[in-house]
Amino acid sequence: MQTKILLNEDQLPKQWYNIIPDMPGEMAPVIHPGTLQPVTPDDLLPLFPMPLIEQEMSPDRWIDIPQEVLEVFKLWRPSPMFRAHQLEKALGTPAKIYYKYEGVSPAGSHKPNTAVPQAYYNKIAGTKRIASETGAGQWGSSIAMACQHFGLECTVYMVKVSYGQKPYRKSMMRLWGAEVFPSPSDKTNAGRSILANDPDNQGSLGIAISEAVEDAATHEDTRYSLGSVLNHVCMHQTIIGLEAKEQLKIVGDYPDVVIGCHGGGSNFAGLAFPFVADKANGKNVRLLAVEPASCPTLTKGVYAFDYGDTAKMAPISRMYTLGHDFMPPGIHAGGLRYHGASPLVSQLVHEGVVETKAVPQIACFDAAVLFARTESIIPAPESSHAIRGAIDEALLAKEEGKEKTILFNLSGHGHVDMAAYDAYFNNELVDYEYPEAAIKESLSHLPKVD
Amino acid sequence: MQTKILLNEDQLPKQWYNIIPDMPGEMAPVIHPGTLQPVTPDDLLPLFPMPLIEQEMSPDRWIDIPQEVLEVFKLWRPSPMFRAHQLEKALGTPAKIYYKYEGVSPAGSHKPNTAVPQAYYNKIAGTKRIASETGAGQWGSSIAMACQHFGLECTVYMVKVSYGQKPYRKSMMRLWGAEVFPSPSDKTNAGRSILANDPDNQGSLGIAISEAVEDAATHEDTRYSLGSVLNHVCMHQTIIGLEAKEQLKIVGDYPDVVIGCHGGGSNFAGLAFPFVADKANGKNVRLLAVEPASCPTLTKGVYAFDYGDTAKMAPISRMYTLGHDFMPPGIHAGGLRYHGASPLVSQLVHEGVVETKAVPQIACFDAAVLFARTESIIPAPESSHAIRGAIDEALLAKEEGKEKTILFNLSGHGHVDMAAYDAYFNNELVDYEYPEAAIKESLSHLPKVD
Repeated sequence: MQTKILLNEDQLPKQWYNIIPDMPGEMAPVIHPGTLQPVTPDDLLPLFPMPLIEQEMSPDRWIDIPQEVLEVFKLWRPSPMFRAHQLEKALGTPAKIYYKYEGVSPAGSHKPNTAVPQAYYNKIAGTKRIASETGAGQWGSSIAMACQHFGLECTVYMVKVSYGQKPYRKSMMRLWGAEVFPSPSDKTNAGRSILANDPDNQGSLGIAISEAVEDAATHEDTRYSLGSVLNHVCMHQTIIGLEAKEQLKIVGDYPDVVIGCHGGGSNFAGLAFPFVADKANGKNVRLLAVEPASCPTLTKGVYAFDYGDTAKMAPISRMYTLGHDFMPPGIHAGGLRYHGASPLVSQLVHEGVVETKAVPQIACFDAAVLFARTESIIPAPESSHAIRGAIDEALLAKEEGKEKTILFNLSGHGHVDMAAYDAYFNNELVDYEYPEAAIKESLSHLPKVD
Repeated sequence: MQTKILLNEDQLPKQWYNIIPDMPGEMAPVIHPGTLQPVTPDDLLPLFPMPLIEQEMSPDRWIDIPQEVLEVFKLWRPSPMFRAHQLEKALGTPAKIYYKYEGVSPAGSHKPNTAVPQAYYNKIAGTKRIASETGAGQWGSSIAMACQHFGLECTVYMVKVSYGQKPYRKSMMRLWGAEVFPSPSDKTNAGRSILANDPDNQGSLGIAISEAVEDAATHEDTRYSLGSVLNHVCMHQTIIGLEAKEQLKIVGDYPDVVIGCHGGGSNFAGLAFPFVADKANGKNVRLLAVEPASCPTLTKGVYAFDYGDTAKMAPISRMYTLGHDFMPPGIHAGGLRYHGASPLVSQLVHEGVVETKAVPQIACFDAAVLFARTESIIPAPESSHAIRGAIDEALLAKEEGKEKTILFNLSGHGHVDMAAYDAYFNNELVDYEYPEAAIKESLSHLPKVD
């Protein structure tokens, strides 16, 4: 009975899959936040190095992974795939449940899959320092680790409430050599102007993005880096799905449904996009993005042009959004609290290729605890949304008496998030109501783009 | 350039290596703490199930690993071995440095290697509940995970100072279904009598062992479990060294020196014992146990009979000891704060087969930070002692201009120990003086065994 499905180091994918040429419908342009006109590659140069700008817009279906990046990936990739025999047994389901496990990276999540190539391309383009933001800290620690590897300096603006509450991720960034500021900070105009109006502002991902973008745009040798949402980020993550397909071939299986949690979209995209290509070629596979009910971007947002950040300095994209000044409730899956979504995932949702589902946080922790007590691995709170989705599919299969193959992405471990489990066991978690009024208000501030 | 050396699932060792038949010199008997006479297997039955008592005393060189245990091991084993190319480069050493990485287990350390078989043998022997103790929590979380897997209840007595300071490991135990009490507790006579004299007592591993032993001895369906020191524990850990030898064969290499950190001895033994057998057969390999200077059991203790616990309820073994009532300073490598040592490792040290070295904690964190900034993986504070040992060997090789192959055990990751790194970066760590007077005092209380 095979539990763990491994690939050899020489089976590590050598190319990323770029979904752009396979997208249904036409991609909307990215809009400059100042001029409200489509951005040119040159417009983006203050923020990103040219190789990443080219990837962001590339029409090529396959893009080579540089050897220097592959060498770093070998520390933890190919990542394992598991068959969740114990979980299946506990559920009494006829479904087969597989999961791809990304918690084996040094940072404990899937984020280094894009942090490493982003740091590499910045290095070869002459960048000296990377400025970025982080919410709960998974991304901040990953970009710090990658910068350390390639000898780049790293500045991270960390959402203030997490800076105080998640000291361990901050310590990881420090250990990997990054400087970390609580955001809003006094280091940027964006931060200072928010603090002037509201000295106790606890920050948000949108504000932290504004600070990091301003830092990069105003320093010659500094570039900006984003851990999700963008096309090139989703593409870097496709290594997850490409490996997963090879691993399923080994056991002669293919998924009926592929599931990922959804915040900005990159871990879902990473697993799902290689299967989207199969679906376009006639394969019968469902793709399901699971998001928190308290920040329901895909299920309750609108498909519209919106800013990527609060201070309206980041480019405008067409995406599902709750409005750039929507402030989501403080749930424990900090990585899923973003007002927007990947434009690629958004378009796939809009075209009916990707299904969506919103789940409340207590039901997700129920799922995570069952998972930890059967499969032994402790999931990150973000990943628990994918587990909830997978368990619900498995229970439906049981109800219907149907065999079914489920694949989900266990995007990270929860060793640095144990306080969230404490809150669950102490009955301190609440399921926030769908914040209808706040969303309605923030959606009234969308930019006017023709 | 190969960085990661992997074994396939079917290369998982099927037997443990039992060093007892290959020990130099005769093994001293284990002594009953009440009668001061050698214990019989029946004496141990209130504490351990018969299969583990048999393993503790077995003359067989190879012992089959049960299929049910192998199935669980497949979650994370065979564990990876890495060549530390980046660290070598940073040191400018001609030495080759390999490390075996045990942080890939669901608990993040090597401890599940013995927790899983211990829970399994208890299960088949009819045990309903396991009582154990934990210091920093690596062991407690591992035995909780293993009990959860086999459907056993689990009670953990956690050293009180860690119970307060290390909430994340406590949360992990709770998530895996264990009940956790701060020790000294009011649940046992041992705990109550200590609290009666000293209500603010912050606990020690010796006290927590007394509580767990008493709990097991006074409950019919409950057995005791220890995470290090004992023969069968060291034997379970030999899967590390057995895998390591196969992995080095793949790259055609063999170590000149094998290094592990040393607390109770099991992670060192796990990597080193299979090489001890080679050494006895004429191979030229050094074996080095590295311990904290503040709890210098092997380097400053005496080789004598002593109790395994503070309350003198645990069996008496001949081992290196600082005295059963020695209270080590509160260093951040909580897993290395034990007054005694594995009798097997102790005898190998006494016979000159194993070398020892004591290192101060700041030098260990220096090594851990360099490691994290080159190899990306964040080491557990315990493991940093092995890294310090390996780096010192590599620097010596550089000084001498000699090629050398170094192998060490990276026994766990440090994601749950980031507060220790914070203390390091905030210059709050101190290197405790060798506590000479305290050790002299405690060594005056050794039991009188002929």
